[in-house]
Amino acid sequence: MDERAALRLLAADLPSAGDDAAVVDDLVLTTDMLHETTDFPEGTTRYTAGWRAVGASLSDVAAMGAEATAAVAVYADRDFAEADLRAFVRGAREVCEAVDAEYVGGDLDDHAEFTTATTAVGRTDDPVLRSGAESGDLVVVTGTLGRSAAALRHFEQGDTERGNDLFRFTPRVDAGRALAESATAMMDSSDGLARSLHQLAEASDCAIEFEWDALPADESVETLAESESDRREMTAFFGEDFELVATLPESALPAVRAASPTAISVIGRAIDSDGDSETGVGRVVADGAPVPDRGYTHGE
Amino acid sequence: MDERAALRLLAADLPSAGDDAAVVDDLVLTTDMLHETTDFPEGTTRYTAGWRAVGASLSDVAAMGAEATAAVAVYADRDFAEADLRAFVRGAREVCEAVDAEYVGGDLDDHAEFTTATTAVGRTDDPVLRSGAESGDLVVVTGTLGRSAAALRHFEQGDTERGNDLFRFTPRVDAGRALAESATAMMDSSDGLARSLHQLAEASDCAIEFEWDALPADESVETLAESESDRREMTAFFGEDFELVATLPESALPAVRAASPTAISVIGRAIDSDGDSETGVGRVVADGAPVPDRGYTHGE
Repeated sequence: MDERAALRLLAADLPSAGDDAAVVDDLVLTTDMLHETTDFPEGTTRYTAGWRAVGASLSDVAAMGAEATAAVAVYADRDFAEADLRAFVRGAREVCEAVDAEYVGGDLDDHAEFTTATTAVGRTDDPVLRSGAESGDLVVVTGTLGRSAAALRHFEQGDTERGNDLFRFTPRVDAGRALAESATAMMDSSDGLARSLHQLAEASDCAIEFEWDALPADESVETLAESESDRREMTAFFGEDFELVATLPESALPAVRAASPTAISVIGRAIDSDGDSETGVGRVVADGAPVPDRGYTHGE
Repeated sequence: MDERAALRLLAADLPSAGDDAAVVDDLVLTTDMLHETTDFPEGTTRYTAGWRAVGASLSDVAAMGAEATAAVAVYADRDFAEADLRAFVRGAREVCEAVDAEYVGGDLDDHAEFTTATTAVGRTDDPVLRSGAESGDLVVVTGTLGRSAAALRHFEQGDTERGNDLFRFTPRVDAGRALAESATAMMDSSDGLARSLHQLAEASDCAIEFEWDALPADESVETLAESESDRREMTAFFGEDFELVATLPESALPAVRAASPTAISVIGRAIDSDGDSETGVGRVVADGAPVPDRGYTHGE
């Protein structure tokens, strides 16, 4: 069974799971595990690792439209070098501070590979799920796309400083709170924009059309992309950007933009699925052409 | 830096950490990571692993005197065999049901060694910390001691059914709620009774005396222990029993016992530390002789 099949199996068993975060009463709760070999390119500092790992969980809280309350992490490694551990904790704490959450520690564990498991908790009385998009809704994304793809290229080229800078992102809790007022569906783009749109469309029983030129590419992408197709790869398929993808009625856009400290870009619309479950539901189209359901699969 | 030194470093940096669970507003939050090679003896089923891993985090919630709200887990393995995954989830869900919490899923992750990271969340307006024991307070433990030591011997002898049975424990959330009304200090015994008493005495700036004969040995220990010293090893030093250790005024005992569905055994008393920080604070004495600060160190 591959990871996506296993996740579907779990979602059937656990109705509270299956969205960006689980909902229990007014709490949202989410957990992730990251490993040195698969998630942190050579050159990633422990400060960046702490920031990014805890940030990934806070992004899931943001995607529910919740306030971020607190985060914890398990830090597992071959040994506990004081400088590494302190740097990790500083990164974890600073990303929490960036979204008004509290980093409250966690646990240590001996392990052959640097591994971290992070958990974030948030609160909301009205979580925004992935389902709920209505035909005619605008599709929006926060911030810019392609930072992580650009970071990886900098790491590969040995520019670890730029790689680390781009790898530390601000979880979009503020934007998520602004969007929560009127968003009909929301998730984060950690699996890549294309895959996120497919997941959102499938959960909402609709289709989505967008325009390639409407995607807010990060300036780092503008510098690095070697072609238009490369630009699309970096912004829509590479993933791990931790921006929010949401749908909302067009009439709500001005108020959301006024309330969000982060830019909100309109990239397209939710459209009718045509009632054909084979080809319609979950269909994503850009400039009239189908967009494959391809992106970042965690752990591969 | 060894794990305990690293934990002290973190406790200094993170004032919310350092107890069984972190406290944020009315939430308690705790996380752990367990690995196949270090935490699950050969023969441990995935059902038991799910139960035990999630149970360990729920035990930390119980140790704060909190209600258990929810738990999540990351399940990391070489592959996702449906039967294994379903068994793990069933164990995780059943241990949550045993304490009226909700298991709400988590995440999957590819990893070379079966590893699970669990997180539990609880609620209380009045958490019970490890500090707070007063000279004269009774020292009590819930349930029985030595189950995990006995389980390991059964696993070693190839009696995996008995090993698995003993490895699944009920987190003492109910007893913790009953104790929370009057306990002056509380923690769980996951590092072993002896080490837990040392930690509690140190956090509370007192000493503790107890009687060996007062320890509530599990019936499995009575069968397996080869000598009195072996019995002490199993009940006081082996650890991983996930019972609660608490201090409370003697006058409160009848009400606590009436409210707790789990047996509460009095094993000793908190006594004055004599004001000598070298030999007094944190000192633990049984039948007049010093008890070493020795027990289970996670990850070793």
